[in-house]
Amino acid sequence: MSEIGRIEEANDRFAASFDRGELEIPPARPLLVLTCIDARVDPAAAFGLEIGDAHVVRNAGGRATDDAIRSMLISSWLLGTREFAVVHHTDCGMTKFTDDVLRDMIRDGAGVEVDMDFLSFADPEESTRQDVDTIRATKGFPEGAAVSGHVYDVRTGRVHQVVPPTPVG
Amino acid sequence: MSEIGRIEEANDRFAASFDRGELEIPPARPLLVLTCIDARVDPAAAFGLEIGDAHVVRNAGGRATDDAIRSMLISSWLLGTREFAVVHHTDCGMTKFTDDVLRDMIRDGAGVEVDMDFLSFADPEESTRQDVDTIRATKGFPEGAAVSGHVYDVRTGRVHQVVPPTPVG
Repeated sequence: MSEIGRIEEANDRFAASFDRGELEIPPARPLLVLTCIDARVDPAAAFGLEIGDAHVVRNAGGRATDDAIRSMLISSWLLGTREFAVVHHTDCGMTKFTDDVLRDMIRDGAGVEVDMDFLSFADPEESTRQDVDTIRATKGFPEGAAVSGHVYDVRTGRVHQVVPPTPVG
Repeated sequence: MSEIGRIEEANDRFAASFDRGELEIPPARPLLVLTCIDARVDPAAAFGLEIGDAHVVRNAGGRATDDAIRSMLISSWLLGTREFAVVHHTDCGMTKFTDDVLRDMIRDGAGVEVDMDFLSFADPEESTRQDVDTIRATKGFPEGAAVSGHVYDVRTGRVHQVVPPTPVG
């Protein structure tokens, strides 16, 4: 069975006992988590987020890209989130390559020249601090917004704080 | 207690019984899900994804932005994913505003002029098709990659297919 078939089959079982259909759009908690796409990171499980609790933004690395900022502006202005947690993690795929290596792979494998900053990094504590700084320096968030930085350890399941909650803007 | 305090407390309990520390970086299944940040969408629960199974990319709307494409190139070339599922959902916050409304809110509330395309949309089936088309039209993905489109119903917990799996590139 294809992976798509498998998720549809799993969803049949999920929907059969689904009982959260009355939830409204704004998250129950004013929280947004920005984290990596890594398969070993499950923010709902690791941080105790129930369905309806919090916004979760995920991209390769959990980076504070322009697109992540777009999501955070929508989340905070329209849906009331005020605490932003940036969560990078140990053993991240983003620390295992350089942008040049991936550009070469794509050129050799697909014959395409991709001129893109892939935002790879060497150390998750350092990248977390950088991304917290980027968010803090962004103008246009609502009053009362704060951002913190954390690193999740994929070996232990434990998160530790790298940057305490700090006002944004 | 702050939301950050709450996630740290919940994580203490999670880590105390964590037993998935031996998982390697590549997802166990060659699957990447691109979906929305919405608090009511929990892809792990709704699609039966265990820790270590699949990459999950999330942004406001689940849009095929340049940053989502960045994540998908990293995921597929370096970590082996080949099936990309775009999952938008009913009652999405992105259908409740226009870009002009949000720009006005930010100008009035924060005194900042934000010149950004927020990528709001009117219909999740239509936006899903658009984003599947964007990914299909992107050059540079590995051979064998395919993309499908789905809409998740937040009232029933049920996902339905809008675009069947189709080759990328």
